[in-house]
Amino acid sequence: MTTVPWRDPALPAAARVDDLLSRMTLEEKTAQLYGVWVGASTDGDGVAPHQHDMSVDHDWDELITRGLGQLTRSFGTAPVDPALGVRALARAQRRITEAGRFGIPAIAHEECLAGFTAWQATAYPVPLAWGATWDPPLVEEMARRIGDDLRSAGVHQGLAPVLDVVRDPRWGRVEETIGEDPYLVGTVGSAYVRGLESAGVVATLKHFAGYASSAGARNLAPVRAGVREFADVTLPPFEMALREGGARSVMAAYTERDGVPASADPELLTGLLREEWGFTGTVVADYFGIGFLQTLHRVAGTPAEAAHAALEAGIDVELPTLKCYGDPLPAAVRSGLVPEDLVDRAARRVLLQKCELGLLDEDWTPEPATEVNLDSTGNRILARRLAEESVVLLDNPDGLLPLAPDTRIAVVGPRAADALAMLGCYSFPSHVLTHHPEVPTGIEIPTVLDALRTELPDAKVTFAQGCEVTGPDTSGFEEAIARTAEADVCVAVLGDRAGLFGRGTSGEGCDATDLGLPGAQGELLDALIATGVPVVLVLLTGRPYALGRWHGRLGAVVQAFFPGEEGGPAVAGVLSGRVNPSGRLPVSVPQVPGGQPWTYLQPPLGLAGEVSNLDPTPLYAFGHGRSYTAFAWEGSAPDPVEIGTDGSYDVSVTVRNTGEREGAEVVQLYLHDPVASVTRPDMRLIGYQRVTAAPGEAVRVTFRFHADLSSFTDRAGRRVVEPGALELRLAASSADVRHTARIALTGPVRLLGTDRRLRCDTEVTGVE
Amino acid sequence: MTTVPWRDPALPAAARVDDLLSRMTLEEKTAQLYGVWVGASTDGDGVAPHQHDMSVDHDWDELITRGLGQLTRSFGTAPVDPALGVRALARAQRRITEAGRFGIPAIAHEECLAGFTAWQATAYPVPLAWGATWDPPLVEEMARRIGDDLRSAGVHQGLAPVLDVVRDPRWGRVEETIGEDPYLVGTVGSAYVRGLESAGVVATLKHFAGYASSAGARNLAPVRAGVREFADVTLPPFEMALREGGARSVMAAYTERDGVPASADPELLTGLLREEWGFTGTVVADYFGIGFLQTLHRVAGTPAEAAHAALEAGIDVELPTLKCYGDPLPAAVRSGLVPEDLVDRAARRVLLQKCELGLLDEDWTPEPATEVNLDSTGNRILARRLAEESVVLLDNPDGLLPLAPDTRIAVVGPRAADALAMLGCYSFPSHVLTHHPEVPTGIEIPTVLDALRTELPDAKVTFAQGCEVTGPDTSGFEEAIARTAEADVCVAVLGDRAGLFGRGTSGEGCDATDLGLPGAQGELLDALIATGVPVVLVLLTGRPYALGRWHGRLGAVVQAFFPGEEGGPAVAGVLSGRVNPSGRLPVSVPQVPGGQPWTYLQPPLGLAGEVSNLDPTPLYAFGHGRSYTAFAWEGSAPDPVEIGTDGSYDVSVTVRNTGEREGAEVVQLYLHDPVASVTRPDMRLIGYQRVTAAPGEAVRVTFRFHADLSSFTDRAGRRVVEPGALELRLAASSADVRHTARIALTGPVRLLGTDRRLRCDTEVTGVE
Repeated sequence: MTTVPWRDPALPAAARVDDLLSRMTLEEKTAQLYGVWVGASTDGDGVAPHQHDMSVDHDWDELITRGLGQLTRSFGTAPVDPALGVRALARAQRRITEAGRFGIPAIAHEECLAGFTAWQATAYPVPLAWGATWDPPLVEEMARRIGDDLRSAGVHQGLAPVLDVVRDPRWGRVEETIGEDPYLVGTVGSAYVRGLESAGVVATLKHFAGYASSAGARNLAPVRAGVREFADVTLPPFEMALREGGARSVMAAYTERDGVPASADPELLTGLLREEWGFTGTVVADYFGIGFLQTLHRVAGTPAEAAHAALEAGIDVELPTLKCYGDPLPAAVRSGLVPEDLVDRAARRVLLQKCELGLLDEDWTPEPATEVNLDSTGNRILARRLAEESVVLLDNPDGLLPLAPDTRIAVVGPRAADALAMLGCYSFPSHVLTHHPEVPTGIEIPTVLDALRTELPDAKVTFAQGCEVTGPDTSGFEEAIARTAEADVCVAVLGDRAGLFGRGTSGEGCDATDLGLPGAQGELLDALIATGVPVVLVLLTGRPYALGRWHGRLGAVVQAFFPGEEGGPAVAGVLSGRVNPSGRLPVSVPQVPGGQPWTYLQPPLGLAGEVSNLDPTPLYAFGHGRSYTAFAWEGSAPDPVEIGTDGSYDVSVTVRNTGEREGAEVVQLYLHDPVASVTRPDMRLIGYQRVTAAPGEAVRVTFRFHADLSSFTDRAGRRVVEPGALELRLAASSADVRHTARIALTGPVRLLGTDRRLRCDTEVTGVE
Repeated sequence: MTTVPWRDPALPAAARVDDLLSRMTLEEKTAQLYGVWVGASTDGDGVAPHQHDMSVDHDWDELITRGLGQLTRSFGTAPVDPALGVRALARAQRRITEAGRFGIPAIAHEECLAGFTAWQATAYPVPLAWGATWDPPLVEEMARRIGDDLRSAGVHQGLAPVLDVVRDPRWGRVEETIGEDPYLVGTVGSAYVRGLESAGVVATLKHFAGYASSAGARNLAPVRAGVREFADVTLPPFEMALREGGARSVMAAYTERDGVPASADPELLTGLLREEWGFTGTVVADYFGIGFLQTLHRVAGTPAEAAHAALEAGIDVELPTLKCYGDPLPAAVRSGLVPEDLVDRAARRVLLQKCELGLLDEDWTPEPATEVNLDSTGNRILARRLAEESVVLLDNPDGLLPLAPDTRIAVVGPRAADALAMLGCYSFPSHVLTHHPEVPTGIEIPTVLDALRTELPDAKVTFAQGCEVTGPDTSGFEEAIARTAEADVCVAVLGDRAGLFGRGTSGEGCDATDLGLPGAQGELLDALIATGVPVVLVLLTGRPYALGRWHGRLGAVVQAFFPGEEGGPAVAGVLSGRVNPSGRLPVSVPQVPGGQPWTYLQPPLGLAGEVSNLDPTPLYAFGHGRSYTAFAWEGSAPDPVEIGTDGSYDVSVTVRNTGEREGAEVVQLYLHDPVASVTRPDMRLIGYQRVTAAPGEAVRVTFRFHADLSSFTDRAGRRVVEPGALELRLAASSADVRHTARIALTGPVRLLGTDRRLRCDTEVTGVE
């Protein structure tokens, strides 16, 4: 039996794909460049913006005779039992392979940010909570589990992680990000990518690039950012996730920057991504993002022009459906508007990925190998660990926490008894089940109230909601105040409701005009404090909120960022003391609701000073978090040293647990560059290490600082290391520097290439 | 008698200056590059930021033996009687000319934004009020008067106008700007420049460039802006004021943009300004701006390095004093750090300007020619006209205004009876007299309360302050409510107190975190409305404030932007009906306090849409304003026409006064570009004409649209006209389009040079 070359696994993938392309018609090639979204609603109330006006009528049976590039969210669109879903997906794949001339299956993609966005699948903590753990290995393990679950369901590609760096905390999608520092985002994000890819699933870096910087924090609003901010803040996490994570796909952002939509930007999607960084995977569109070039950006007059602009820029795959790359694209090729070479370029990339995934192999079968269980015990254990590590104890001035076992506790607030309070907007229950109110969440999600009752069985726990998440209604205050007055302590559980496009206070399309707590929750907190009973504020949010108004009036403050299905027990564990809190803020918590945008990455004039009456100093700084134990930092103040602009230097600190219980400290390394050719952030994170120590135990953390880590983009747009003085600041938070090492870089200005060091190697050793 | 060449008025200026330079020592040349600020306070509470730590000890008598470039604010630093001040300045000039080898006087400069910042000088309305007049000829006349007064006092250079385009209304200096549209700023600003220069005074364009775009609206905070935003929004007013106004000086901004401080930016200060635009005047530093390169931007390690960076970038003159260009600069030249050529380049520009001003002439004398009267009757009449034209009637839904002559009026609010409520932060009383509480304002400034009593002698006018401008105190509400309850109408006069560096709610260094009315004023307004008595809200502010909370609950809303010494009678005239309001908003008035930054210049995704829950649509749009009469717009809907990408097209509209009294309408022309290669604002102003008509009268306004006016900066950074469809929208405001002409530009993409047309020529003709 002879095999055609493209079916021959002994040939190199490129040769197989070239052979395949030579056999395909234009329509067959373009069919590899789009997805089809079976079962998506067009009633204007779907899970993606403009779902109603971007749909395209098509005859599925006729369509798949051309082949099909992608299958869009067969699990993530409506609640389907996982086992049935697996069979349905396999059936669809069989139909696709049987209908086309070549029998090539589609790549099935799903959302999977904080867990597979499918019914009955584990809902992990959201990315902002991963950022709060400062624990990349744990995030990697989570992503491997997500990848395994996707793979078990027949899914090839996951549309995660989000590598946007927070630039304005009012933006609704802050919950989907890892934080406001590019190094933290890059290291944690790369860990996610490694985990997902290690399971054989294609990770998709998004949103490339600049999306988080929209003016006024309105979703998709134009981005004001210069080339240096873009190069030094926005891009590094993507570069790291490609180089250190091995991501095989990148999603073009909806956004425009300085007038140029990312989805129509060849300099970004081809010049930088492929030619400079050497990326060889696929670039996919954000949902409807190609069509938006015509309708929302107006840089194209027709769907065909939009297809042309996107394809030329370097978008290989239109998602979720075929508005522009469907019929308009081959027609535009035939009319001479679009060179066929551009189609071939994109089809080659798609087919290479399919080849890599085994989808061109004769023995490929749609039947998944294993039983599906999307919320295994192992998943739940990991979800719990992540949640526990992510809870940040912001304040505990008089040691009100942990609570005694027999305390009388008034649990108050609209987030205390709602399972959805634990989940972000891309969780299946928030994302999809809102359209299916009759369907249960499909996973067990203890609330903070449930968990606290379990955690402290001897406590007397009462509950009053007090108010809704949003709206001005204060009619529930009276009962909340009464319950509080009868208690030893009030646990006020406040925060966000995640949702999409205005259906929540956090999430995609749920932006805020300021950082005041939503609705009447701030007033409720005032009323509870006024009772004189000590109040523990527990926040379950997707973004930081301004807390200056209550500073000094609260017994304790606990910040959790949508901590997932095991978040209730995690928070309750911190309240009871079972869990020693170890989370650190991945975003600054401001004093006042206004004055945005602001993050901690500021040159001197972005900090407090006498030229403006406004003091942007946060109430709780980036990197801040408290523990139930204490750590002493023992370091020397070494003499200043000189190293070359290509040199490296080891800086160490010893951290000793001086308290009475085991705990974790996060040792943070910041760079301060006193004089440079362009303005530089006063402090920026260049390394960190989470360490655990038993009482009395000490560990030594050594950072190998390399001069590359001081590099930045100069006036000419080159990445350089400049000679001169530097300070390496070892710190417990960006506002709490414990030791400083002064070094001087000597020698010439050094230009860096794409082999520059991105990460600060770290060594942890026991002491004594 | 032989004259040395540099004294010879028959020789060309360049030859004279070259001769002079050849005779000068390095110290004599550098002495031309700085100012000295005699009498400036160093106690930390002066009129400029960092005045305390930027001062330099020097011995005046020794210093002036080298000569002196500039004398800083001999009138604007402390209250001096103008006649005495003139004599003191002349005495200082005589000492300078007698002490140096060459006998060259200093250029005396002063602030003069809304009038000469001197004691007893006219305080005109602030620039935001000029913007509200949409009347460049009137602004030109004001500036000519300011120039005449400066000249009469021996002053050569005025540090005005401010051409920053509002990008975030929270910024404290919004009151110093002309508005949020570059065309409005450019046309009104150029008129100011023409006026000042026509009096022989050097106008100084500031702040070059980008200062208004600081992140979070904090003064001097880093600017996030891309090159296209910079080229298409920030720069055009400067280009227009140079080409059409003939400004002879430019001030480098404090700001940094994308990491590069303007004061150390050769591409901006030399490449663009001189090489591309052909500017030949002087570039001066903003006060202490060169020293800030070291202390606040940290792109220089020493004052000498700061001097080097600034001089190399193209700053010719250090102001206000000699921190960097004093001793550090010649020392740096002698040590080889700074090439002497750079000193010569700057000194040549300064001396050429002195030559032009006659300061190198043998017969120059410091004695001014005329008597000084800085607040003449002519000035006051003009200040009144400007103020009257600048008052914007935002709303008058039931015709509550004008007030009947015999009304019982409760005047309430912290701005009703304070003369300083009329003035901006650069007025002498707000700027300087705050340090001299014992000194009277020196000019007559009727308050709104005074003026209303004069305006309506038969009315029963009572007054209660209600609250302070700032602070939470509501103890005065009771009396205010009582006075209101006894009246037919309440006139609530609310707003800002202008001040510097935290001493006000508006002004330099007085930024806002949001656009909520300061202090308890919003609550006071709620309380007044609750009485049921109709409330007329009168705002005396330096920025727009969010008014959505009171929409539909107010009898009328009158917006005045610090209207100057004659502002009280102007506002009272609008309330009484003596003045038919004709102001139009130069800035949008938002619905809610948060959600900034936002201005009306937005591509589609910057407007309301379904991808964000936030709707930034303003309550009152840019260009909005009501009248006591009505205008009918009579236009045809012409057939679409084609013109070349270098063509022009006349579009006309007839405006008829259909009401019963004379009034003014502002006909506004906006461009809508449906498809372009980069995203474009949905609407932007490209022409306007203020017209006055008697009852029944009609006037025809014709705009000669030239294709150049559709140009923008493309992806490659070139200014281009692209072929394609355009709409010319004739409108009564940016939200009230009355007629649209559709045109199509045909032909090739056209690249424009610096001879491009900047302005839309307009013709006004009577009809019938």
